[in-house]
Parts: sequence; C-alpha cells; structure tokens
Amino acid sequence: MMKALQLDIDGRPALKSLPCPEPGPGETLLRVSHCAICRTDAKMSLAGHRDLSLPRVPGHEIVGKDETDGSFYLVWPGHACEACEPCRSGRENLCDRMRILGFHRDGGFAQWVTVPKASLIPVSPGLPGRIACLTEPLACTLNALELSGLSAGQRVLIFGAGPVGLMMALSAHSLGALVHIVECDSLKLELSGRFREAVGVEASTGCPDEPYHVAVNAAPSPVTLQQGISRLKPGGLFCLFSGFIGDFSIPGALLNELHYRQLRVAGAYGCTRKNMMQALSLLADHARIAELLIEEVIGLEESVDAMDRMLSARTMKFVIEF
Amino acid sequence: MMKALQLDIDGRPALKSLPCPEPGPGETLLRVSHCAICRTDAKMSLAGHRDLSLPRVPGHEIVGKDETDGSFYLVWPGHACEACEPCRSGRENLCDRMRILGFHRDGGFAQWVTVPKASLIPVSPGLPGRIACLTEPLACTLNALELSGLSAGQRVLIFGAGPVGLMMALSAHSLGALVHIVECDSLKLELSGRFREAVGVEASTGCPDEPYHVAVNAAPSPVTLQQGISRLKPGGLFCLFSGFIGDFSIPGALLNELHYRQLRVAGAYGCTRKNMMQALSLLADHARIAELLIEEVIGLEESVDAMDRMLSARTMKFVIEF
Repeated sequence: MMKALQLDIDGRPALKSLPCPEPGPGETLLRVSHCAICRTDAKMSLAGHRDLSLPRVPGHEIVGKDETDGSFYLVWPGHACEACEPCRSGRENLCDRMRILGFHRDGGFAQWVTVPKASLIPVSPGLPGRIACLTEPLACTLNALELSGLSAGQRVLIFGAGPVGLMMALSAHSLGALVHIVECDSLKLELSGRFREAVGVEASTGCPDEPYHVAVNAAPSPVTLQQGISRLKPGGLFCLFSGFIGDFSIPGALLNELHYRQLRVAGAYGCTRKNMMQALSLLADHARIAELLIEEVIGLEESVDAMDRMLSARTMKFVIEF
Repeated sequence: MMKALQLDIDGRPALKSLPCPEPGPGETLLRVSHCAICRTDAKMSLAGHRDLSLPRVPGHEIVGKDETDGSFYLVWPGHACEACEPCRSGRENLCDRMRILGFHRDGGFAQWVTVPKASLIPVSPGLPGRIACLTEPLACTLNALELSGLSAGQRVLIFGAGPVGLMMALSAHSLGALVHIVECDSLKLELSGRFREAVGVEASTGCPDEPYHVAVNAAPSPVTLQQGISRLKPGGLFCLFSGFIGDFSIPGALLNELHYRQLRVAGAYGCTRKNMMQALSLLADHARIAELLIEEVIGLEESVDAMDRMLSARTMKFVIEF
C-alpha cells in the first residue's frame, strides 16, 4: 500500500491509502521524489477537465527514482501511441490516442507511479528535484512560443504574472525576445517582482500601447484575447495558451480584424518530449531564478490545503516532496 | 474627359463622364483594356467597406496599356510605402500606409487609370486581357494558401463554389493538395461543374466527415468557421479568407477547441506582388480552364447591371472590356 492524494468520483480530493501500482508492458515503476501542483489540478477538482476521468490520482509534474538503476527521471506526462500522424511528425502531445498522467491514468500525487519507459527523461544528479519538477510547465511555455514562431528581437506580450506567466517570460527571454507582462492584479504583480527583476522583464497592470509580434495568455480570461489582438502588429499572432473559463462569446468584428490585418490565433496545449529536454536545460541554467517560483515545499499531507490556497490564484508553485 | 463608373458619396453606382486622371510622381497613366468585377465591388456599394472612401471609381482587377511603350500591364492594386516593417519583409499587402486602387484611390472601372510604377507587372502578349485580369483574385487565393502553409499531399476543405472558391481550388490543386469544395447552394454547385471537372476537384453540398489539414472560407457565412474547425486534424488551420458578414458571435467553446487541439486560425487579406506573378504564371498555364470562370465579357455601360446580378452570388466573373 502507498499514501496518495486521490480525487474521488465527484472530484473531491482526499488522502488515501491505495495499492501500489504494477508496471504494465513497456512501463517502469518510479518512487516519486517530487511532484509540483499545477493550478489545473486544483481547478479540475471543482470544475472537471476535458481529459479527466475519475477517480484519479492527479499530478503530472513528476520527478522520481527508478529503484532498479538508482537514477532520477523526469516524466513527460503523456502516453502516446507513437504510430499516428501527430506522433510520427514529432507532435506527440497531439496523439490521437493520448493518455495523460494525472488525467487519464494515475499521476504523481502518490509515493509510487507507473510510467511508460518512452516518457522518461534522465535528470542530472546536480539539479535538485524540487527544481527539476518545474520542467513540465516550463516545457509547455516553450511549446507555445515555438508554435507562435517567436524569434529573437521580437516583442511579446504575456497576460498573467502567475507562475506559468513568469515561466513564459523566462522562456521568451531565453529566445531573445523583448517581454512585457500584463497582470491586472497589483498584488500578484508585486509577488512576481523578485522573479521579474532577476530575469529582467517589464510589467504593468494595464496593457501598453505599443505593438507586439506575439501575445499569449497565461490567464483564463477571454478579455485577454480582445486586448491581445488589439495590440498585435499586422501579421501578428495571439497564442491561446490557457483555456478560457466561463460562458462567453467573441464578437464577429474581432474575427474580421484577423482577416483584414492577417492576424493569427494559435492554440497551444501541453508539450513534447523535445520541449521537456529544452526546458530541463533552461532550468539547469537558471536554477536560482527558478527557485523564486516555489511558494513552498510541502509534504503530501499538506497538499489538499495547498490546492485550496492555489485557487486564490495568488500563490507561486507548491512542490510536494516525498 | 473619360467614361467611368463611379460610386457616389452614398455608394450608389452610376456612369459618369470624369476628367482624365493625371499621373503623379512615380506613377504611370494606363489605358484600361480589361477590368474584372469583384463581388466586393458590388457589395461595398450597398454595405461599405473598411478601406473604401467615397466618391470612388472602383475596380482593382485591372489590365491596361501604357501608351508610351505600347506594352500591356497587370496592376498590383496596392500603393505601398516600401518603408514600413511589413513592406521591408515582403508583405506589402500589410503596409501601414496602404492605399488600394478602387478603394482609397480611383480604380479601373474607367477608360484611364493612374497607377504607381512599382505596381506594374508586364503581361505577355499571348495571354488575352480578359484572362489576365483574373490574376488579382487568384493571387489572393495563393496568398491565403501560403499563409496556411498548405503543402503537397495535404487535404484542404474550401467553403464556397463561387469564382473565388474555384480559384482557391485551382491554386490548391497547383500546390499538389487534395481539394474538396463545400457549397450549400446546389445551383451554384451545378454552375461550377465544368470548372471543377476540368481541374479535377470533388464537391458536395454538405461537409464531409474526413479530417483536413486546412479549411478556408470563400464564403462570408460565420457558420463556415464552426464547420471548418470541427473538420480539422489536430494542429490544423482555418484560413479566414472572406470577411464574415452580419451580426454574430463565436461561442467560447470553439476557442477552447483551438487550445486543446492546437488548431490555428489565420486571417488572409489581399496579396503581394510576388503572389500576382505566381498567379499570372498559373493563369497562363491554365488559360482554357480560367475561361470557364468568366460569366460574360461586357461593356462599361452594362457594369451597373452586372454588379446587381453579382449580388445574387450565383454568377461567375464579369469582365469589363474597353
């Protein structure tokens, strides 16, 4: 038996004692060392998620140890078929038969987790697990910026100064882009100050008037779409990185603006293994800065409470350490 | 003085006798030989257009003769600044200070027109003017497919079997794509039969169930956006080629589908000089097929009536011959 946090059939999180999972063919059993909590984990316990089936052990930002070789691994949280068109073209995050750890199958809020061998990425012993487990969300931001075609010298507008908005800023900065963050919540803006200063990124509560090559939302408000599109240069791109919440609709005039100014809207979801490797290397180069993204390292017992606190959207990352 | 069709200050078309235009610096006077009527010309006389200022001689699908050298030229209908970022990156259709013939300045529904020398594209004497003047709309479809990244072997869904939808099909076919046209009006579908057979393009009144790499609307109904997006493969692209008409809004769920499936929406508007040269070469290779796109070659006197008939959306192209 093992300790785990499980969402029950109604999505309510509770600490449980569950049987240790058994690795299937092509899989490995990992002893989880660290698993970070994503705001999606907290939100989906209330509101559900397209990819979530219940009951479920969540957690997709996993670092663990393979006891058979003593090595630590990051986990790309997908289980892809390797055969469909997206898989064959290196976009395994779009796999037709994708099964995601912590959504379709049990994830890392547990002492043990089984993962496909093809999803293991070795972590160098020098990088602390609490930092390495931030790789997956950082990789998602690299995927988004790759899809956006962001390049050195271009200007990018990021909506949201939560942990993922800040990771987006780090990724964009690493590509040589000029970054501006918009965060309407002045308290969150203040909380992000040390990280932003360390990276060297401007921010404001309102949307600047300058034109941008790319705008991207690390915040779920549909208002970001209208604001972002209005700030794009001709031919610019809005990256739909965070899903939008609430009942809303987009006025037709906004679509005609896409037409007349040859603007683009590009959805981004998840990341590929290649993005994970890029993100791991970026984290290794900026481990001290990444440390600023951690609100608190906690035990599994505190994870239900931490998920609650994350719903305020005013915390950095919580990392569960086993 | 010269004969011209002019939209008056209220947008109403009427035949007029107007002073011959005088070429400004860097401009040439052309004796118009052919000018095709775009459905936008007909529509904007009723509903206006973002780029239209009145009174105005419309017409942006122009072939004319430079009497000083006796040569025939196609006209790229833009007047670009050649200095802004879009101009310098070869996307002069997005010029910050763009002035379009037939919209911001007088166009080709007249015996004479002045055009920037930089907008002239020589036409080989072997290609009839009534065919050559179809270059601009064909170039717009090439621009759209270039922005869509459509490549050989990919599947593309085109909404609309009007002249521009058919040109889109010819362009897509020339790129080696597999083309399917959806046209809900069975009469229009029938009218397009000879052209479609000549190119070798499938069509239907309903949307097929297969998945497509690219969908593009050559029809102004917003329904095409929802239908098109539902038929895209993961990572696929909807090209917003025709502006949408009417008061409408797009449900938020459609945007979240972009997010989850990494779909893209890309606006397309106008064309570049390079697209015009590509389209001219495509027309020269398919002059007989292109002939099927012409409803009737008419005199200027019949143009007001032709614009009226085009509003039914059930005609092919009218070409004014001077």
